[in-house]
Amino acid sequence: MDKKPLRNSRSQEPIDDFIKRFTASDPVDRRLYVEDISGSRAHARMLACQGIISEEDYNQIEAGLQAILGEIESGEFSWSVALEDVHINIEAALIERIGDAGKRLHTGRSRNDQVALDIRLWLRSQIKAVCRLLTRLQKGITELALLEADTLMPGFTHLQVAQPVTLGHHLLAWNEMLERDYGRFQDSLERLDQCPLGSAALAGTSFPIDRFMTAKELGFREPCRNSMDAVSDRDFAIEFCSAGSICMMHLSRIGEELILWASTTVKFIDLPDQFCTGSSIMPQKKNPDVLELVRGKSSRVAGHLTALLMLMKSQPLAYNKDNQEDKEALFDSADTLRDCLRAFAEMIPLISPDRATLRKAAESGYSVATDMADYLVLKGASFRNAHAIVGQLVRYAIEQKLSLPELDLSQLQSFSPLITADIYALLTPEGSVSSRDHIGGTAPRQVRKAGEEVLQGLLLRADQEVT
Amino acid sequence: MDKKPLRNSRSQEPIDDFIKRFTASDPVDRRLYVEDISGSRAHARMLACQGIISEEDYNQIEAGLQAILGEIESGEFSWSVALEDVHINIEAALIERIGDAGKRLHTGRSRNDQVALDIRLWLRSQIKAVCRLLTRLQKGITELALLEADTLMPGFTHLQVAQPVTLGHHLLAWNEMLERDYGRFQDSLERLDQCPLGSAALAGTSFPIDRFMTAKELGFREPCRNSMDAVSDRDFAIEFCSAGSICMMHLSRIGEELILWASTTVKFIDLPDQFCTGSSIMPQKKNPDVLELVRGKSSRVAGHLTALLMLMKSQPLAYNKDNQEDKEALFDSADTLRDCLRAFAEMIPLISPDRATLRKAAESGYSVATDMADYLVLKGASFRNAHAIVGQLVRYAIEQKLSLPELDLSQLQSFSPLITADIYALLTPEGSVSSRDHIGGTAPRQVRKAGEEVLQGLLLRADQEVT
Amino acid sequence: MDKKPLRNSRSQEPIDDFIKRFTASDPVDRRLYVEDISGSRAHARMLACQGIISEEDYNQIEAGLQAILGEIESGEFSWSVALEDVHINIEAALIERIGDAGKRLHTGRSRNDQVALDIRLWLRSQIKAVCRLLTRLQKGITELALLEADTLMPGFTHLQVAQPVTLGHHLLAWNEMLERDYGRFQDSLERLDQCPLGSAALAGTSFPIDRFMTAKELGFREPCRNSMDAVSDRDFAIEFCSAGSICMMHLSRIGEELILWASTTVKFIDLPDQFCTGSSIMPQKKNPDVLELVRGKSSRVAGHLTALLMLMKSQPLAYNKDNQEDKEALFDSADTLRDCLRAFAEMIPLISPDRATLRKAAESGYSVATDMADYLVLKGASFRNAHAIVGQLVRYAIEQKLSLPELDLSQLQSFSPLITADIYALLTPEGSVSSRDHIGGTAPRQVRKAGEEVLQGLLLRADQEVT
Amino acid sequence: MDKKPLRNSRSQEPIDDFIKRFTASDPVDRRLYVEDISGSRAHARMLACQGIISEEDYNQIEAGLQAILGEIESGEFSWSVALEDVHINIEAALIERIGDAGKRLHTGRSRNDQVALDIRLWLRSQIKAVCRLLTRLQKGITELALLEADTLMPGFTHLQVAQPVTLGHHLLAWNEMLERDYGRFQDSLERLDQCPLGSAALAGTSFPIDRFMTAKELGFREPCRNSMDAVSDRDFAIEFCSAGSICMMHLSRIGEELILWASTTVKFIDLPDQFCTGSSIMPQKKNPDVLELVRGKSSRVAGHLTALLMLMKSQPLAYNKDNQEDKEALFDSADTLRDCLRAFAEMIPLISPDRATLRKAAESGYSVATDMADYLVLKGASFRNAHAIVGQLVRYAIEQKLSLPELDLSQLQSFSPLITADIYALLTPEGSVSSRDHIGGTAPRQVRKAGEEVLQGLLLRADQEVT
Repeated sequence: MDKKPLRNSRSQEPIDDFIKRFTASDPVDRRLYVEDISGSRAHARMLACQGIISEEDYNQIEAGLQAILGEIESGEFSWSVALEDVHINIEAALIERIGDAGKRLHTGRSRNDQVALDIRLWLRSQIKAVCRLLTRLQKGITELALLEADTLMPGFTHLQVAQPVTLGHHLLAWNEMLERDYGRFQDSLERLDQCPLGSAALAGTSFPIDRFMTAKELGFREPCRNSMDAVSDRDFAIEFCSAGSICMMHLSRIGEELILWASTTVKFIDLPDQFCTGSSIMPQKKNPDVLELVRGKSSRVAGHLTALLMLMKSQPLAYNKDNQEDKEALFDSADTLRDCLRAFAEMIPLISPDRATLRKAAESGYSVATDMADYLVLKGASFRNAHAIVGQLVRYAIEQKLSLPELDLSQLQSFSPLITADIYALLTPEGSVSSRDHIGGTAPRQVRKAGEEVLQGLLLRADQEVT
Repeated sequence: MDKKPLRNSRSQEPIDDFIKRFTASDPVDRRLYVEDISGSRAHARMLACQGIISEEDYNQIEAGLQAILGEIESGEFSWSVALEDVHINIEAALIERIGDAGKRLHTGRSRNDQVALDIRLWLRSQIKAVCRLLTRLQKGITELALLEADTLMPGFTHLQVAQPVTLGHHLLAWNEMLERDYGRFQDSLERLDQCPLGSAALAGTSFPIDRFMTAKELGFREPCRNSMDAVSDRDFAIEFCSAGSICMMHLSRIGEELILWASTTVKFIDLPDQFCTGSSIMPQKKNPDVLELVRGKSSRVAGHLTALLMLMKSQPLAYNKDNQEDKEALFDSADTLRDCLRAFAEMIPLISPDRATLRKAAESGYSVATDMADYLVLKGASFRNAHAIVGQLVRYAIEQKLSLPELDLSQLQSFSPLITADIYALLTPEGSVSSRDHIGGTAPRQVRKAGEEVLQGLLLRADQEVT
Repeated sequence: MDKKPLRNSRSQEPIDDFIKRFTASDPVDRRLYVEDISGSRAHARMLACQGIISEEDYNQIEAGLQAILGEIESGEFSWSVALEDVHINIEAALIERIGDAGKRLHTGRSRNDQVALDIRLWLRSQIKAVCRLLTRLQKGITELALLEADTLMPGFTHLQVAQPVTLGHHLLAWNEMLERDYGRFQDSLERLDQCPLGSAALAGTSFPIDRFMTAKELGFREPCRNSMDAVSDRDFAIEFCSAGSICMMHLSRIGEELILWASTTVKFIDLPDQFCTGSSIMPQKKNPDVLELVRGKSSRVAGHLTALLMLMKSQPLAYNKDNQEDKEALFDSADTLRDCLRAFAEMIPLISPDRATLRKAAESGYSVATDMADYLVLKGASFRNAHAIVGQLVRYAIEQKLSLPELDLSQLQSFSPLITADIYALLTPEGSVSSRDHIGGTAPRQVRKAGEEVLQGLLLRADQEVT
Repeated sequence: MDKKPLRNSRSQEPIDDFIKRFTASDPVDRRLYVEDISGSRAHARMLACQGIISEEDYNQIEAGLQAILGEIESGEFSWSVALEDVHINIEAALIERIGDAGKRLHTGRSRNDQVALDIRLWLRSQIKAVCRLLTRLQKGITELALLEADTLMPGFTHLQVAQPVTLGHHLLAWNEMLERDYGRFQDSLERLDQCPLGSAALAGTSFPIDRFMTAKELGFREPCRNSMDAVSDRDFAIEFCSAGSICMMHLSRIGEELILWASTTVKFIDLPDQFCTGSSIMPQKKNPDVLELVRGKSSRVAGHLTALLMLMKSQPLAYNKDNQEDKEALFDSADTLRDCLRAFAEMIPLISPDRATLRKAAESGYSVATDMADYLVLKGASFRNAHAIVGQLVRYAIEQKLSLPELDLSQLQSFSPLITADIYALLTPEGSVSSRDHIGGTAPRQVRKAGEEVLQGLLLRADQEVT
């Protein structure tokens, strides 16, 4: 049937090799070697403390694992797909190296709790790395916001010019999104902070283990409270991908905006060259590749989230092999997040706003119409009536192909006798933004205040992350 | 082209009506009327306090809104799709009722911050309701777990009998899942706890509003810190659907297990009649419809999560009409969660375990093989050697069609001289479970202890939820 | 626990009512009444032909179902959620109306094949309606493309101006997307064209039914070939949502482009007023609500697709109650598709391109750089060298703040001696587009030819759809 | 900020290297080298035929590409991530090898049409491979179905025993699912069968290319009809993942059933040892790993589908860098499909049904209750009355702890006087199945007939696939 195999395909491989490869999680899970060895060392130490293995066995295990770690890091370790996964590869190497003592390492443990432990340890460090990158990106955005606290630009709703805002205000909106992301990652870290080791296959073990000791050694708050849950739970992977999907969605929005702003017909900003590429055919192109890739990559994390939810749906307890499928989705989500956050953290501080173009655009689209309505309210009109009057005025101005400030006073007054000459001072982007002077508003004074507060918080956070 | 329209379809409607219906969020958002009126009352009170509207206008607005609330609750209110949404329907009714004062309500506000506020208020009460139902379900599960703390059953991995566990232990694993869900909902409540009111269209307003006052009146911790973010943010909807998808995934796992346990060929439990239905053709059927529906409904919440992530992807700031699409996904997710949690909270306390069948199954599948291996380790074998010996022993027993305890001592000793007569005491489900006597283990003593601790916590939580 | 119920919630309802509502598919499936009655009439006719019921019983059933159909259409029919679904509601009404004969209708049938039939019948008519709307939309786009076959505009890649194209060419790209959608819907119709009736609960029936007769009566190609598959299969729903998701993704791309083109800073087109709405606060706004909603609604269909795939994942055969969850996702997907296609079919013919603005933008961004490189190749340079030379030239022009045609010949020749005065004729958008004169190219001649061919095909298709 | 980098992370890399890696599609797209070289050869041949390049240049290009193909296949080719992707790697190697002639290869072509071509070529061969594997799997299932055409087993709905069926009948239901999958892949192949080459960047090219010639050389039906669509379209990737998601969903259902059937408490079948694995802790375990992995892997393909739909959502024309993200999702989906289909094609013919256990289970659960109701209808009762009578009878039997055939005649008659002694012949699984003797029914005669027809079709198909 299969006479014409694909080039490059593996379909010619003998059935035994095929099944070995199909069921193995190596080479995907090799990157867990640090965590696997840390977990084994803590487990062995506990076994020795509890008298389940001898001190001598423990010393051999400890030395053996150290040596294996060195071999892996130097690239000398010989991995085998036939040994299924990172756990068996390392355990087999240990037995080969130290003999009988190595055969005692797996006492009171199962691969089910071992793999649950390794992923948790790995994910814990990933979340911390993601948080550090978030801090760095937020800091870059906030510093730029402070520089551009007075820069006028059009605020859009429905991609139509709505009201003038400042670029600093717009940038601080991005910070708010990322701040929520930070919170979600931190919350997930709290929930992750339980140690599954000692759950064994699903029911715990008959050996007199000390789960509090291993939990503490490995830096966890406490042991998982139920062994069946501990080996079947993959909530942490889903929660990470969920927080990651929202974060990537935010990056996609930022990316979309920067792409729009850098578009030939808009030209609000210029992008740093090193984050753009050329074309294979069009010599003039400067393409915002990094921005587009980040925007696109938001999809893959959401895809992984879907996959993980679907993976776990309807699974009976306790461990099922389906769970092995959690790794690629999780690993790729973490890698994607770290890369995209770094790309933005490097790039965003280097974008150059074209203040003149932004200022000009801030005047377009009758952006100060709301200010005129508010003016009429202050003069005594109800908001709904004021809104209707200005609507008619704008229609008239469009017909006359004039902007609002270009209309003369008699023209304005023909729509409402409440209007007097003092209105012209309001009909500027500067007047508009400076009037929105309350917490969260776009007035430069508020933007600077908000930006400074945010920056203080970020600097504190950065300090804590380093230590 | 469209000569043969669908029966029941709306395709014959005139284009104007079609566009009105297509763009309207009424009738979907009518259910926000309580929140819309609460928000308007708080806004009007603040406008009056700040002197932006007169006390008299405020009193009229207050009375008018109260009257409208009454009309809606009694079903007398006349909704109109031509008025687009719940907000305009209510504002128009107010203006009709009280005239000019009504036209002043929308001063310093936009639909963009109004709708963001209404959804947040609505979602806050939904999350609290979901949490109350979670507490109730967890309590039911934990009480059942305490009743079944000694009930033996097979523990499965890969749906193969692995080791004996107790039913109480298994049920407490469910509680752990739901406990994490509770935490996620609580965390989302914290992040939701900011008031968007005062953000207006996107930039704040030129009126001297007091955002702290409205935030406090409406029970929020603080105002949202950036107006552009406040009107464009829908993270709360996504985070709710994410926590909800994980929770529903847990319910799907519980549902799957109960369906398996109630299956004709397994018969571990009997389901309460009122949660099952019959067949239109097969007179004998008792179908676990509620369980299957909950399992199935997990998919719709995950679908809504996907939809919301995709909805927000790449949206430029600030508000876009796309956001109107958040409502059905969010509303249906909350309804589904509440219904499914209630269904389980009512049903699970009423399931009847068949202890005899469970006990018998706990002996099957060589479930005590691990205990035998642990025995050999205690006698001095290394774990890996012990594991290999017992593997051979099980193969021999399968060939002989005997269970492990049915092998006589000489047969056992032919595999390892370490085995002595004391082994038979271990080769029972009772012996097996009672040996797993550490935190998280399946020993009845541990199950009772864990269950009691959990129950104490739930009772405390339930008390706090009432107040 | 639940002392403080939600306003508006149904949580106070008694448990019996709750379970009835929770398990019922009424009122969601009421809209299947036409299909349910058609199916029952065909089934009854077959039962009579085969002598399984008497002619007299058949006549009563036929008259009874006709009467019920009339009642439903006139709104007099009394639906009951306690009767679970559309099928039992109608069967119960029939029995009430005609007595014993009504009790014979369900002979040799089960709700499992009945519901599978009803959904297939319903979906068949929906797909046909979707296809008619696709034809109408494609016709509108193609007619506009022919009108704008010569209209110059910038062609974008990476949202950067790449090369000049014609608006007609761009519009025909949209037609290609929709043409593939049409094909997918037609393919799904082919696969749907099998009749499940007669599969009964899962195994067929012991009555001497004639499945070919009912299949033919109901307009199907043939009966489903396996009864277990027939009652458990929901592929048609997933395939519809998949074709629908791709189609909606296309509409989202078209919507995004129109939103960009209508944006205040771009202004390539003006949108018809009746498809836009204003703002509650900003009097000048004309928001592209219809476009944004279509863009947003693409997400809900993709969400439904996810939900259906997850719903069916891992379901053992044959029918499970989970399948009841297929309806809302399917119904909403079809409604969304029909509405969005209609909205675009009505709207797109009415958009007004601003040809002057488009022409001007077509010159921007060094859009003719590729033409200059091609010119150098014709003069003997290799493409890679030509590409490099023009790259340098563009950099020089940017520094000089000049466009390419603004450079004088000596400036051009300083980059390559191959350049002579004939180059200026090429450096126009007109020259650029007319040179791309092959099938699929943007030359106006090609665009007109392609548009006319497409239009012929669509007119033929439209004729066939009417008959 | 980033003082404590992750072990194993790439975060220490300099920014330039980071951006190069981040934007490169190498090494992911290396596997397209065969297709890239095929496409370039066809393009060069056309350029020569059209006189765009010289014969001599063509001969050098042809020889150079052949040599590079050889180098890649032998592993000697030196890939560089700095050269971004497979296309530039190969073109750069060509230029290095043959000089100026190599610089002419890209004349009249862009990476945009080049990559669209390469993926289409690659996907075409993948779809064919998937189809061959489907045929093989369907053949294995159908042959087993013919062997088990008479094997009795319980048919389940709601995982409750419903009516007896034959195992052959059940297996043929699987074939129907896969047959629809085959159709979907074939339909997608038809839609894929257009050649994008010649579309260049987005607008076509000014060189006098012959797109029909390259389309024919590369085995396509015709050129793509619109150049902008050709470079921006990724429908084929989404359609493949959609067909693949449905197919994987089917495999997940088959997997779930086999897992259930092999479960310790059910034991309907025995699985072949080479497709199962043991446990690291429990010596007796034989885990259905392959089945669980296939079930789990269904999620990843659905995740990729979600990702691709989200990726393309709202993208303006024509090419955007986001599209580069299509590759990993598509590649992994194809690999997963091929592996899972192969695993099942190898495994399913080797499963051993335990006919005695199946026969016994077929009698359980009052599986013949429907037959008894049908019997009463034949004796003159209406179906609804018959259904009610048998319902009471089953309840009585359950109370008596008897099966239906164990009730004596007087007991039966106390429920309906229509019952006579001939009923006992019906109350067997054999009687039940043989009575369902119509197309699609479970009668062994029908199963054999259906199986033989299916098998004939598959053998024909297999023949066509080889040639």
